[in-house]
Amino acid sequence: MLTPRAADFPRWYQDVIAKAELAENGPARGSMVIRPWGYALWERMQRELDDRIKAAGAANAYFPLLIPESYLRREAEHVEGFSPELAVVTIGGGKQLEEPLVIRPTSETVIGESMARWIESYRDLPLLLNQWANVIRWELRPRLFLRTTEFLWQEGHTAHSSEMEAREYARRILREVYEDVLVNVLGIPVVLGRKTVRERFAGATSTYTLEAMMGDGKALQMGTSHELGQNFARAFGIDYLTPAGRRELAWTTSWGITTRLIGGLVMVHGDDLGLRLPPRVAPVQAHILAVKAGSGVAEVVSKLAGALREAGFRTTLDDRVDIPFGRRAIDAEIKGYPVRIEVGPRDVAEGRAVLVRRATGEKTEVMIDAVVRSVAAALAADQHVLYDEALVRQESRTAEVASVTEAIEAAGTGWARLPWAAAGAEGEATLNARGITVRCLVRADGSLPDSEGEPDLVAVVARAY
Amino acid sequence: MLTPRAADFPRWYQDVIAKAELAENGPARGSMVIRPWGYALWERMQRELDDRIKAAGAANAYFPLLIPESYLRREAEHVEGFSPELAVVTIGGGKQLEEPLVIRPTSETVIGESMARWIESYRDLPLLLNQWANVIRWELRPRLFLRTTEFLWQEGHTAHSSEMEAREYARRILREVYEDVLVNVLGIPVVLGRKTVRERFAGATSTYTLEAMMGDGKALQMGTSHELGQNFARAFGIDYLTPAGRRELAWTTSWGITTRLIGGLVMVHGDDLGLRLPPRVAPVQAHILAVKAGSGVAEVVSKLAGALREAGFRTTLDDRVDIPFGRRAIDAEIKGYPVRIEVGPRDVAEGRAVLVRRATGEKTEVMIDAVVRSVAAALAADQHVLYDEALVRQESRTAEVASVTEAIEAAGTGWARLPWAAAGAEGEATLNARGITVRCLVRADGSLPDSEGEPDLVAVVARAY
Repeated sequence: MLTPRAADFPRWYQDVIAKAELAENGPARGSMVIRPWGYALWERMQRELDDRIKAAGAANAYFPLLIPESYLRREAEHVEGFSPELAVVTIGGGKQLEEPLVIRPTSETVIGESMARWIESYRDLPLLLNQWANVIRWELRPRLFLRTTEFLWQEGHTAHSSEMEAREYARRILREVYEDVLVNVLGIPVVLGRKTVRERFAGATSTYTLEAMMGDGKALQMGTSHELGQNFARAFGIDYLTPAGRRELAWTTSWGITTRLIGGLVMVHGDDLGLRLPPRVAPVQAHILAVKAGSGVAEVVSKLAGALREAGFRTTLDDRVDIPFGRRAIDAEIKGYPVRIEVGPRDVAEGRAVLVRRATGEKTEVMIDAVVRSVAAALAADQHVLYDEALVRQESRTAEVASVTEAIEAAGTGWARLPWAAAGAEGEATLNARGITVRCLVRADGSLPDSEGEPDLVAVVARAY
Repeated sequence: MLTPRAADFPRWYQDVIAKAELAENGPARGSMVIRPWGYALWERMQRELDDRIKAAGAANAYFPLLIPESYLRREAEHVEGFSPELAVVTIGGGKQLEEPLVIRPTSETVIGESMARWIESYRDLPLLLNQWANVIRWELRPRLFLRTTEFLWQEGHTAHSSEMEAREYARRILREVYEDVLVNVLGIPVVLGRKTVRERFAGATSTYTLEAMMGDGKALQMGTSHELGQNFARAFGIDYLTPAGRRELAWTTSWGITTRLIGGLVMVHGDDLGLRLPPRVAPVQAHILAVKAGSGVAEVVSKLAGALREAGFRTTLDDRVDIPFGRRAIDAEIKGYPVRIEVGPRDVAEGRAVLVRRATGEKTEVMIDAVVRSVAAALAADQHVLYDEALVRQESRTAEVASVTEAIEAAGTGWARLPWAAAGAEGEATLNARGITVRCLVRADGSLPDSEGEPDLVAVVARAY
């Protein structure tokens, strides 16, 4: 059914996305239709992220999709970074517009303009905003979820009275929101680090990133958080009155995570049978299959569904016995439901069910009145099984190297950790020429570097999506 | 502070939106920034609607923002209806596009195209989809929340195997989702009816609507649900194999409700002091104000906040005693928090607090250990107080009339109920010339008409936003 991962990983990825009915291409180039199963995953991620964003004190708001072109030009690096990717509206209401409007590629500019109006004094700081929105960045080589012209995301935007406070907040989001959700909900190990000047966000002074290793050893940037210094504050006049009565520029941050997470989830946990979903993010945790019609089957599966729901598990019931069981079982496997419970007439006669764990493939016979307990145990265990498996891969496929040449070699199959002093901007250019990038710079103790000039930094180097 | 409603209702509306910090104009004409307090309202509405949409069996998905212009042309009435309102992207990634892309004004076309691919046989029906999205309809006379070029909404799209099933589903959404949320959560009485041919959605065979009376006697369309017949099925090839092996066209519906609801909520419940929020939709139900610093105040307000949260009430605490109490109290009034609890040093000394109900303005002294109980009682009561007040207005300002002339007279201050036989398409044109519209056609027993040709229909006639 699916191309094996070892044969052609990108093809396998496409197959899973299609067969698990996660998404497909939309009509316009680079656009994407997110199908119900893919969107259910996104809704669960949203809920987990949103709860933590609110716990970090940020309030949701909504800013316009269409931004006057002139706004982007106010921050020189920003417009330079985004100009090649813009979609531009030139006609509105049947008329040529006097000033073209760009569809937001990100909202620092339009939100900066509001911040400038909303902030008067130090009392109005910090201003902590977030929005859930769609953005457009024109994509020449689209790939579902990973690179699409339109994608969904949350973008946080905050303003602070000091550089230190802005830095702490940008890092807090990285750890308390993004890392927490990735590791503890999505079961994805990540490396946190600082982007090099070459890789950082257009208009930022520092970009922090979370990088994850995919099933083929490549890296995927899972989310970023930026210190914007006073760049946007200066461009949009975001200033405030200090307690001493002076006007000062604010320090701003922005941070975002996108529907790309879904692609990452597929590539970290998927196997040759399809998707495997960590129980905490799975929209369906327990999936009951009536094997075929027979005395008592309908009653038993419906009772089981009720009991599992009662116990708090997200549960679905497939009792379409007029469709061959094999087809439905394979479909459930491809879709990645963490636990499958199969009940046929013989099972009913013997008072048992078959429990299949998607993470391990393990099949066990379970007495019907022990199903809820067994499902609970399987779900609790498999959240860790998937995380541990991904962590072992990441660790075993990361090589400690001493030179750019060795890094190039290592990046053929995984990641390399290279002393940044042995690479530098020049080594980075050499790597880039081979299609390899510095994913991030890290300190030996795992904390985040304040600048790329620090001594003893390590560059995590890889091919990336 | 606010313009009184009686002096200038539209101005009052603008004042409330601004002073309650719900929204403001964005930079591009007709665009809107939804501020955190306005967005918190939208999030609550979304949650209530989304739960019911899912209970009605529809699954969320996401379809592209940008639609090839040619798609809209496939359904003749649809393109005619929407062409004047389109925003058109002509440049993408720095290049002139070969085919311009329109920003979705609604998604029947792009979703119809997906449905045609996803539906093969009767087994795939009904297909019940929903999406939460932004849309753009170019607006020449924008008004915050009521008419904005960009707005947020949910749009449901379904396909069925029979006209009757499609009809039932379109009506089910109207009643079980929209009417339920409007009446029981937003406290807004509504009249359900059928739009006339002149007023119906471009491409529909039937449009059902929910109409509410605003504080000035005008009508606001709160949501609509459409039977699309086989119009879009024909245009996009949405067909299916029947059990007998024949290919037949599906019957589709669409239905939507928008951020306009927030404007309706303001205009139904607001008074000369600002917003009044029904407790069930209020993002903050209990708002505690520390009147000023003093012995024990900080401890008492913090304990009260804990107790109210524990009891399940959405609670905020304003202990900014360095800002004058009067200013904070007025701000709380404008923002519409259902219950305010004020605690000053004298209150603490006497073991009591002052409880202020926003719906009625009533202030009572309550012993501190009775606050939770009193808040619960006030919230339960005021949900109904607000609904009843709106219902009394709607009923007292609706006149039964016998002629178009009388309807014009009555529409000066409220609604008119006019036998449709006494108006007809010709009477409707006369009304339209005076800026009055037929909001909907209803049966005497309140059920929904199958066509506008039925005998004994009543037209609900009004000026509208």
